[in-house]
Amino acid sequence: MTHPIQTRLAALRAAMQQHNIAACLIPSSDPHLSEYLPQHWQGRRWLSGFNGSVGTLIVTAGFAGLWADSRYWVQAEQELAGSGIELMKIQNVGQPLHLAWLAANLGPGQSLAVDGDVLGLAAARALQDCLSGCGASLRSDLDLLQSVWPQRPPLPQQAVYEHLPPHACSSRADKLQQVRAAMQHHGASQHFISTLDDIAWLLNLRGADVSYNPVFISHLLLDQQQATLFVGAGKIDAALALRLAADGVQLADYHASKPTLAALGGEQRLLLDPRRITLGLRQAVPEHVTLIEAINPSTLLKSRKSAAEAAHVRDTMVQDGVALAEFFCWFEQHVASGELTELTIDRELTAARARRPGFVSASFATIAGFNGNGAQPHYRATPEQHARISGDGLLLIDSGGQYLGGTTDITRVLAVGTPSAAQRRDFTLVLKGMINLSRAHFPQGTLSPMLDALARLPLWQHGIDFGHGVGHGVGYFMNVHEGPQTISRSQPEAHMAMLEGMITSNEPGIYRPGQWGVRIENLMLNIAAPDAGFGPFLQFETLTLCPIDQRCIERSLLTREESDWLNDYHHTVRSRLAPHLAGDALDWLNKATATL
Amino acid sequence: MTHPIQTRLAALRAAMQQHNIAACLIPSSDPHLSEYLPQHWQGRRWLSGFNGSVGTLIVTAGFAGLWADSRYWVQAEQELAGSGIELMKIQNVGQPLHLAWLAANLGPGQSLAVDGDVLGLAAARALQDCLSGCGASLRSDLDLLQSVWPQRPPLPQQAVYEHLPPHACSSRADKLQQVRAAMQHHGASQHFISTLDDIAWLLNLRGADVSYNPVFISHLLLDQQQATLFVGAGKIDAALALRLAADGVQLADYHASKPTLAALGGEQRLLLDPRRITLGLRQAVPEHVTLIEAINPSTLLKSRKSAAEAAHVRDTMVQDGVALAEFFCWFEQHVASGELTELTIDRELTAARARRPGFVSASFATIAGFNGNGAQPHYRATPEQHARISGDGLLLIDSGGQYLGGTTDITRVLAVGTPSAAQRRDFTLVLKGMINLSRAHFPQGTLSPMLDALARLPLWQHGIDFGHGVGHGVGYFMNVHEGPQTISRSQPEAHMAMLEGMITSNEPGIYRPGQWGVRIENLMLNIAAPDAGFGPFLQFETLTLCPIDQRCIERSLLTREESDWLNDYHHTVRSRLAPHLAGDALDWLNKATATL
Repeated sequence: MTHPIQTRLAALRAAMQQHNIAACLIPSSDPHLSEYLPQHWQGRRWLSGFNGSVGTLIVTAGFAGLWADSRYWVQAEQELAGSGIELMKIQNVGQPLHLAWLAANLGPGQSLAVDGDVLGLAAARALQDCLSGCGASLRSDLDLLQSVWPQRPPLPQQAVYEHLPPHACSSRADKLQQVRAAMQHHGASQHFISTLDDIAWLLNLRGADVSYNPVFISHLLLDQQQATLFVGAGKIDAALALRLAADGVQLADYHASKPTLAALGGEQRLLLDPRRITLGLRQAVPEHVTLIEAINPSTLLKSRKSAAEAAHVRDTMVQDGVALAEFFCWFEQHVASGELTELTIDRELTAARARRPGFVSASFATIAGFNGNGAQPHYRATPEQHARISGDGLLLIDSGGQYLGGTTDITRVLAVGTPSAAQRRDFTLVLKGMINLSRAHFPQGTLSPMLDALARLPLWQHGIDFGHGVGHGVGYFMNVHEGPQTISRSQPEAHMAMLEGMITSNEPGIYRPGQWGVRIENLMLNIAAPDAGFGPFLQFETLTLCPIDQRCIERSLLTREESDWLNDYHHTVRSRLAPHLAGDALDWLNKATATL
Repeated sequence: MTHPIQTRLAALRAAMQQHNIAACLIPSSDPHLSEYLPQHWQGRRWLSGFNGSVGTLIVTAGFAGLWADSRYWVQAEQELAGSGIELMKIQNVGQPLHLAWLAANLGPGQSLAVDGDVLGLAAARALQDCLSGCGASLRSDLDLLQSVWPQRPPLPQQAVYEHLPPHACSSRADKLQQVRAAMQHHGASQHFISTLDDIAWLLNLRGADVSYNPVFISHLLLDQQQATLFVGAGKIDAALALRLAADGVQLADYHASKPTLAALGGEQRLLLDPRRITLGLRQAVPEHVTLIEAINPSTLLKSRKSAAEAAHVRDTMVQDGVALAEFFCWFEQHVASGELTELTIDRELTAARARRPGFVSASFATIAGFNGNGAQPHYRATPEQHARISGDGLLLIDSGGQYLGGTTDITRVLAVGTPSAAQRRDFTLVLKGMINLSRAHFPQGTLSPMLDALARLPLWQHGIDFGHGVGHGVGYFMNVHEGPQTISRSQPEAHMAMLEGMITSNEPGIYRPGQWGVRIENLMLNIAAPDAGFGPFLQFETLTLCPIDQRCIERSLLTREESDWLNDYHHTVRSRLAPHLAGDALDWLNKATATL
């Protein structure tokens, strides 16, 4: 029997032949360059069978390859088996190795097809550079997928709702005013936004069009007086539409954004973020419009949490910590049965969070990986394939919640039975890396790779490294991955130096394929550090409140400063969470936060 | 009386007016983009009176400003006083703040004059981008300096000599073959080189046209069979010319390089390094020649020392260490007199080096700065202005030698009398940073800013930072500053990830203007580190052999690993140097390297 993926690839190849296309590239993106894609735009997943969130598929007449980074290698190898699609391994997240492949495999006169409506402008420019080097050309006006995907899912229809005070700490009018001031600074008369978290933040709106990210499918066009929100009919009810209108925001059909851009007059000066817009939308702008390229002002504004937002996040961390303490207490009471599975973890943990006030949803799919499964950074247990938690080893749990007062993301690794000395060594090295960064002071403006190195050093000293960044930005009741801030060694965006108010994760890891994985993750807030006369310095305030499993620590590997940090942290966790816990959960907390 | 600099500026302004030039920029560079400039090209120094090695002068009708980084602020403030030239402070080395100034102060139709023959192509492109943004234009065909500089010094006339085996470890023919292989890889038929260290390395030649760097003024044009060396008449004697001819290297007049480039035929494919060529030479290439832009192959080849070269460097470090031990022994015997000055240091230290076999010259001007003078990273004592070494405090000595078997560069800080607790704290923090980087293991390909951060972290933890990079590449009997490798947070060159065989310095510092400065510097060789299954790793072998003054250490600030590193290091220093020392110097060594 033919593998179903091979059937789909054959249909695509027939369409390619019909349009005289040598190669077709299907990215993991949508018209909003979102991380989580509505099913309507999950063409790469449908065509390849690979369910990871990031990957690039290239299909030619004789080849099909999927480029994925190390987070996905184990998963991709399993899911691509038998499909005829080759796994092309990327060592570091974001490495554009598929460009090198295209340069080597395409020649003069050949065409590469990519749907320009889901191709980021920055990616398109890199593609064009690469293709012009080898004499090939880019066809971005074809959506070949449309013709070969018989039952393509429709656009999502979920209702949009308001993010209200007290959790929304600035009014819509205030935020619009801030963005308009930035537009004036750039000399822009108009500003077009496609990124969903920018729009949701700016308008104090939220939605549920994709899993985990509380956003809704839309575009937004702003001038100095008015704003037009391009959004699906029926998603915004009449009452909300009136409140938006009071702030100068009118509604238009979702599909009207391109024609509206195309109709802009010659006197307009349009601010666009080249990293946050598709080629298709960029090409819709008439040549007579003056383009101003800069990062979306909302992206920068959103990344720096206000004091009021930070206060809500601290409260939210207490709620999340209480849920985690109740879950871990339950876990310790039941793990000895040998009946728990990775799936039970997700169910019970999400249930514990759902009992907390302000909880809205998980902020991403829970990763619960026992031993070898923990070595897949983006593992997801399924009813068909998951491990029972029994015997000895390490259980990695990475999970988070969306609350009205903030977004959480935490990874802990638990001892199951008796972890081995090698497992405890790995755990302790990761902990050292996490502490090294948590304790760091650094000058304002320090570049992301420099901070990334601080968390890696204790691992490096033992010849160990890992393929993902140390940290990502985190939103405020918003996407759990948010830019521009990151802590990573990959090519930085110009604006990514750390600033006060930014929240990032701190999550070094060690992954031993087939054996075990360790990752320890806290969220941290950038705050001012003492000024010693050498200019402004920053430090981190750890926000996450949850014990780190001391049964996994090889104490001889910790320095005094590291032990002190851990004891201080556990003291904080205990004093913040204890007032909200009772009975077994309180007993568990006290034990888990005992002095090392 | 009018300040002499004001007279010179007035002459320049008159010439500017005559050519309708709104602004004139005088960089610190020559046709070879060298760090050390022959006097002929020290126009910025002549015109501004500022003697620092790096700075950019901009003169308009109503303004004159010199952009300099923090290494030079103290010196520049002193030297510019009364000249009417404003010091424009750059926080970090290489920041192009003068471009922002030009963009803000020049307008449509105005012209900026820069002599294209001493303007790097990369700098020219940045200038052109900046000027086109504000509507101004670049005039690069004028050397305004020539007309206003009455007694401009002539070109240097020093003889060229051969770097011979055993110290020259590869033959000229081998090196030419390696570069030609790289040319073929790039598809280049011709390759033009302007950078003097590249030419000296490639041809196994050395010179003395500038202080400290053993290079000679020349250009080189290569094809697959022949090479043409453009060099001043009489600098190469007949015997050497014959030996060069035997390797296919013919001589031409120094000034013939531009016409030769201009005469290249249309079928030629010319490899040029855009960071290592001037605008003037680039513009000499006819449009019909195909240009291939890439880093000079010799720059990359030269940066990775062979095993034979590394062995010579280790021997050279013993010679340098012996000279330093003899000097420090002498210093300790004489410092109590209170009669020593910063000038004595340079004289005695250079004399000690000059007694060692293989010594050729100093590798840069000795920096000997007592207390407040040590806070100027590039301080140089002069007969007119220098400190007597008496009382209590810290003496910073940064010095190095050119030897036939390698180039050295070392900074040590000595206790004079009784250093204060604050001085010892600063010393120990710098030592911690230096050790943190010295001990680091890291994946091959690690970016320079990540390594830079490792040396800064112990300082950052106390809110302290410094304005220069942590390390620079070092040549092999060649420039003491050599690319592409650096350890720095400034914008990296694409090729600068660390590779086996590269030598860099490791020199964090703390500078308290007017009080004291601390810098501790060793040279290190990149070598392979143990492979733990996570890909190739590198580590550093410390090359420099000289005790670190333990009287300046606040021991409670060192971790056990740091003390262990220091004791191991001192054990190595003692065991390597002791066989070459006797008497007082040996006693000094044994005491200075005692276990902490």
